[in-house]
Amino acid sequence: MNQAQNQTQLIALDWGTSSLRAYRLGAAGQVLELRSLPWGVMKLPQVVLRKNFEVDETAPFELAFEEACGDWIRGAPHAPVIAAGMVGSRQGWREAPYLSLPIAVDQIGSTLSTVHSRGGQTVHIVPGLIENSALPNVMRGEETQVIGALSMLDAGNTPSEILIVLPGSHSKWVQVRLQHREVQSHIEHFHTFMTGEVYAALCDHTILGRSMQTSDVNGDDHAAFDRGVLVAQTPAGRAGVLSTIFSTRTLGLTGVLDGADQREYLSGLLIGHEIAALQALLAEQAHQPSRVILVGDAALCGRYTRALRAYGLDQVEVAAQATERGLWQLAKAAGLLGPLHR
Amino acid sequence: MNQAQNQTQLIALDWGTSSLRAYRLGAAGQVLELRSLPWGVMKLPQVVLRKNFEVDETAPFELAFEEACGDWIRGAPHAPVIAAGMVGSRQGWREAPYLSLPIAVDQIGSTLSTVHSRGGQTVHIVPGLIENSALPNVMRGEETQVIGALSMLDAGNTPSEILIVLPGSHSKWVQVRLQHREVQSHIEHFHTFMTGEVYAALCDHTILGRSMQTSDVNGDDHAAFDRGVLVAQTPAGRAGVLSTIFSTRTLGLTGVLDGADQREYLSGLLIGHEIAALQALLAEQAHQPSRVILVGDAALCGRYTRALRAYGLDQVEVAAQATERGLWQLAKAAGLLGPLHR
Repeated sequence: MNQAQNQTQLIALDWGTSSLRAYRLGAAGQVLELRSLPWGVMKLPQVVLRKNFEVDETAPFELAFEEACGDWIRGAPHAPVIAAGMVGSRQGWREAPYLSLPIAVDQIGSTLSTVHSRGGQTVHIVPGLIENSALPNVMRGEETQVIGALSMLDAGNTPSEILIVLPGSHSKWVQVRLQHREVQSHIEHFHTFMTGEVYAALCDHTILGRSMQTSDVNGDDHAAFDRGVLVAQTPAGRAGVLSTIFSTRTLGLTGVLDGADQREYLSGLLIGHEIAALQALLAEQAHQPSRVILVGDAALCGRYTRALRAYGLDQVEVAAQATERGLWQLAKAAGLLGPLHR
Repeated sequence: MNQAQNQTQLIALDWGTSSLRAYRLGAAGQVLELRSLPWGVMKLPQVVLRKNFEVDETAPFELAFEEACGDWIRGAPHAPVIAAGMVGSRQGWREAPYLSLPIAVDQIGSTLSTVHSRGGQTVHIVPGLIENSALPNVMRGEETQVIGALSMLDAGNTPSEILIVLPGSHSKWVQVRLQHREVQSHIEHFHTFMTGEVYAALCDHTILGRSMQTSDVNGDDHAAFDRGVLVAQTPAGRAGVLSTIFSTRTLGLTGVLDGADQREYLSGLLIGHEIAALQALLAEQAHQPSRVILVGDAALCGRYTRALRAYGLDQVEVAAQATERGLWQLAKAAGLLGPLHR
């Protein structure tokens, strides 16, 4: 790799609720350097107040920003800075108002908000998306991953309707319509499932967790997880999550599942309910995704791939590096990367 | 009331996970005295160990038992003692094995387990019930409330299928078939919904609780609760609980629900999902309860009555004092109350 390619073209921040990841990207959008910091929007560094010295509420953001990429900026003062995630929420550094669905993907990059750091650096903040349906849905940060995943698709041969799944604390299922040839895609709908956060709350703060042990599953033993996945498609599964989760305990009481199994079973059970419900919603909309793309943590994507297969969705791909690619695409669409990248 | 009526006929304990309630009952089963203690099976009093003195694991039960009714026993040494609830679980004082469904109500009282206190008192322990379906269900303590509620029915005019609902941390919906005239009832099925415990975990340990405020609802303002109740029967409700709960947050973000409303809305939303799912299960079994009886905390029964009405179940009665009446009925069925009560 020659020196020009190693020069900083873009500083990109994935700034969520609980962590901050900073990427230094090169001429082709490749990652030259990556930093992971604990300074999520809800976990910012404490600013020590000097006596009689007022600190405004953006000071913790400034501090985290400096630590994340202050030296990179001084080393490449002309490189633009872009940030996505909860940093653009009402509790963030600067609110970047939600954009409403349906929306053309390119439009997101042309609607960035800006905030100026104390050092004079302009930080471009990616807006979140809102779907104002009967039960509104919002996302912040996932829109960037969706754009990253889309940028990796082979445009020539893509079907018109795809489903991008971002499993996690709040899983997002994003329905995208690809325009043929032009590759101008629209995000049409999305759904949120609080599967990961509910799982953690059930394990840590209800009776279900009391008899659980940390699972130490070897690579091939997925029996308890698979058993849980299938519950939602049985007649008993119609009782819904509030009821079926109790079987985690009763299958323990009756000697069917041991402590480690119970944890795996509950994980599968929740993911199965999520997929079953999503399929019901898609069927109602007559939305038939011919392609399902998973974005996220590798182990979690593995779980979802297994579960999706159990529900008849075999054509599942996993998209890597969606966040940094998405930030790169957004900067490009915003015209931040100069004429060479337009 | 004359002196004979004031004499202790039965000492009855409702001994659950988090609390212990002791009843001193008179000749007609009426409550002469009631004590509420914090000594649930998972919250027993600490026993101080003297050096070189071994205390067996039943010691905390003995201590709580003495505090709950030691003086009552000394005052009426021939009065029998009966206890229901988690005291009969594997973690209890003495395990009273589960009885399997379907079961004749009278059979429960004839299958009590016993434990002998250090003072020589025999304590009769009510068994729990288990339904060994695909997803097993268990109850301990609620069987006693069901029996108490049944004892209050006007036997002459009762329909053959009734539904007894015990809302709470783990709501139970119990399907009972009443034999005509003979009043020999059978418990046929029951379902568990972890609604109360999930509600608490969501409010206290997920993002949904962050923007909530303690609700200070005046008696007539149930708009947010009612709005939540209806979600499960809308098209959006088909996404299931894992998805719909997120609307608690988004309806806050979009200015529709304030902090107090969000708490009420989530309560209604979960109860609505519970009722909708239960109705789907009953429809599948072609079980049509002509009578619905609620047992439990008055405020919670009020919430369920509102929600049941929204789902077309108008004929809802609330049964009071079901626990103490159930313990009395069980003691009678067990032959503990002597020939006068047979």
